[in-house]
Amino acid sequence: MMEMAGLKPQHFLWEMKGRVAVIRLNRPERKNPLTFESYAELRDTFRNLVYATDVDVVVLASNGGNFCSGGDVHDIIGPLVGMEMKELLAFTRMTGDLVKAMIGCGKPIVASVEGICVGAGAIMAMASDLRVAAPSAKCAFLFTRVGLAGCDMGACAMLPRIVGQGRAAELLYTGRVMRAEEGERWGFWNSVTEDAEAAALALAAQLASGPVFAHGITKTQLNQEWNMGLEQAIEAEAQAQAICMQTKDFERAYHAFVAKETPVFAGD
Amino acid sequence: MMEMAGLKPQHFLWEMKGRVAVIRLNRPERKNPLTFESYAELRDTFRNLVYATDVDVVVLASNGGNFCSGGDVHDIIGPLVGMEMKELLAFTRMTGDLVKAMIGCGKPIVASVEGICVGAGAIMAMASDLRVAAPSAKCAFLFTRVGLAGCDMGACAMLPRIVGQGRAAELLYTGRVMRAEEGERWGFWNSVTEDAEAAALALAAQLASGPVFAHGITKTQLNQEWNMGLEQAIEAEAQAQAICMQTKDFERAYHAFVAKETPVFAGD
Amino acid sequence: MMEMAGLKPQHFLWEMKGRVAVIRLNRPERKNPLTFESYAELRDTFRNLVYATDVDVVVLASNGGNFCSGGDVHDIIGPLVGMEMKELLAFTRMTGDLVKAMIGCGKPIVASVEGICVGAGAIMAMASDLRVAAPSAKCAFLFTRVGLAGCDMGACAMLPRIVGQGRAAELLYTGRVMRAEEGERWGFWNSVTEDAEAAALALAAQLASGPVFAHGITKTQLNQEWNMGLEQAIEAEAQAQAICMQTKDFERAYHAFVAKETPVFAGD
Repeated sequence: MMEMAGLKPQHFLWEMKGRVAVIRLNRPERKNPLTFESYAELRDTFRNLVYATDVDVVVLASNGGNFCSGGDVHDIIGPLVGMEMKELLAFTRMTGDLVKAMIGCGKPIVASVEGICVGAGAIMAMASDLRVAAPSAKCAFLFTRVGLAGCDMGACAMLPRIVGQGRAAELLYTGRVMRAEEGERWGFWNSVTEDAEAAALALAAQLASGPVFAHGITKTQLNQEWNMGLEQAIEAEAQAQAICMQTKDFERAYHAFVAKETPVFAGD
Repeated sequence: MMEMAGLKPQHFLWEMKGRVAVIRLNRPERKNPLTFESYAELRDTFRNLVYATDVDVVVLASNGGNFCSGGDVHDIIGPLVGMEMKELLAFTRMTGDLVKAMIGCGKPIVASVEGICVGAGAIMAMASDLRVAAPSAKCAFLFTRVGLAGCDMGACAMLPRIVGQGRAAELLYTGRVMRAEEGERWGFWNSVTEDAEAAALALAAQLASGPVFAHGITKTQLNQEWNMGLEQAIEAEAQAQAICMQTKDFERAYHAFVAKETPVFAGD
Repeated sequence: MMEMAGLKPQHFLWEMKGRVAVIRLNRPERKNPLTFESYAELRDTFRNLVYATDVDVVVLASNGGNFCSGGDVHDIIGPLVGMEMKELLAFTRMTGDLVKAMIGCGKPIVASVEGICVGAGAIMAMASDLRVAAPSAKCAFLFTRVGLAGCDMGACAMLPRIVGQGRAAELLYTGRVMRAEEGERWGFWNSVTEDAEAAALALAAQLASGPVFAHGITKTQLNQEWNMGLEQAIEAEAQAQAICMQTKDFERAYHAFVAKETPVFAGD
């Protein structure tokens, strides 16, 4: 176990608001592209979050009116063009490892998306648990625009489950922009609101004041049951929920209810 | 095989309308909470429905303007707080067994939802095949409100397939109410209409007048193919549909078509 | 490898528009029903498309204002009524093989749907990658109307992933018509537009001018990851995308970007 509030990352911003960690990329003049270094540091940070004792929820926020412009053309795409297969696979696996680390970090992640949210940026939004967008949000899985396939960092698996197979196919084959209102209508954005960051922080604060151990189990099961049979998923939930019934948060909620009070959860 | 029309359940109401069985919980003054006893009796009833010769469709209806308020705080949550793991798991497995029994009962289930539909009540609606709601329907997967995880009775597996992964995550992490119009827009409710029960009964009657043996195969395959590969699912359907092509209902439909008549199905 | 532009099919129309093959059934006076022969020839054609060097995208188009009325009542349903199980299974497997061939053909398929699109016609639309409809589109999975189950040619597996489990169940249990605006709202149609064929051809031309090798990988992965675990899907995409990073199209896109030009893809 470790404390992470004092983290000093080199390649992105890190700020604590109570027990909510706010992460934002920090090259706003270029709409916050990813680099080899920020990929790796994000991956390591999400891996460490599993053990963090002082962080309950993560917000992936925008910076300068944009979320993320994806892998930087000069810093990433240029070098990739010259690489051998062994190096290419090491790269695509590293990007995939970021998504695996996000999924496996044990804390809910809320994305707050303004402006440009494309390529690996769209993937980071997709791999978050909840997504709030500003009306300015322009989200595109534009891999096809650079000659690549739509299957990047789990997109062909995850996007169909969020917006449906037909809409996902369109976004992945064409690389076109999903407008904010479309994304809300299709279930990609949980809400679209003028001040997306305020909404995301409020949602994160609400989650952080809830039964955070149980939230971690919810996150685990949403992914664990991804391709389970239905009967197996039901048994898995019987086990997982029985674990949660032995937490003090469950007891606290019961006593608060009987006393007609609002429960105060402590995450144990 | 058995007849069930004359069933006299102790913990819920049971009524036949032709070959449609209408089930409703019956503590309307408390918005129809579930108890250990009603859970068990519902589970056993759905298990027996597999063999029922006189029931073709089930309607899960509301009572006194509400569907179900979930596990009773005093009768269920109180005792759970004091239980050991072995007993807790026995309880969560029993609740999961109700969903397994609903899925496996071989007859389409239509939920007719008015007012409160929360916790295990929301699960029972979710585990039905079709769902009609009144504008008053307030559906919430509020497990998190009592300190538990969203993974209850199959919710992390089923809800994402109905409303999409992002919306399901929001409902399960926050426990918030899904308003009726949201639920329709998201595909949770098949329709929202002032007289939900009339609509549900009409839908059930329509299904009961159809090829009910084939409906049972549809239900089986919807669940059977839950996590099959696509090619395996296609082969499974080739086999399942070939079985249906040997029914008399298929022959009846053909002859009715040739005679320009409406087919009268008999479920064999 | 083979050239297919000069194909002379006997049971449907085949036309090339650049590198886009346009297929349409050709019994418009009967709303384009399928027959044993057209099923088989379509299946073989999609199987051959894997090896076609001169076709990059397929459009399944309408004819005379209708898409397809499904298996012909006289030519198909009549004979089926008299068949033994061995023949029935041979038939349902052949229909399933058409879907498998469409999924496995390696090129994106765009359906352009006007008017009647029912039964096996609805399945062909469903098994396409992208679907454009005219306001006149009337799509129904009407198997239940002829006494059969909704599980036909993969419908119980595919339809829930496109429109959600609840809406799919309704369409499959009732066989009712999905109106064009519903289908758009539910994600079945990518768009609804007066001149659906023009829109579908434009979309197909856009895809054909893109990185078609990578499109083939997108198609492969959308199906390959159907029931993979999420972590396995992410690794599968790391491998698949690394393959695409060794294509010349990827290099072309990079150089075009640096030169501030529009990339010209060549599919290698």
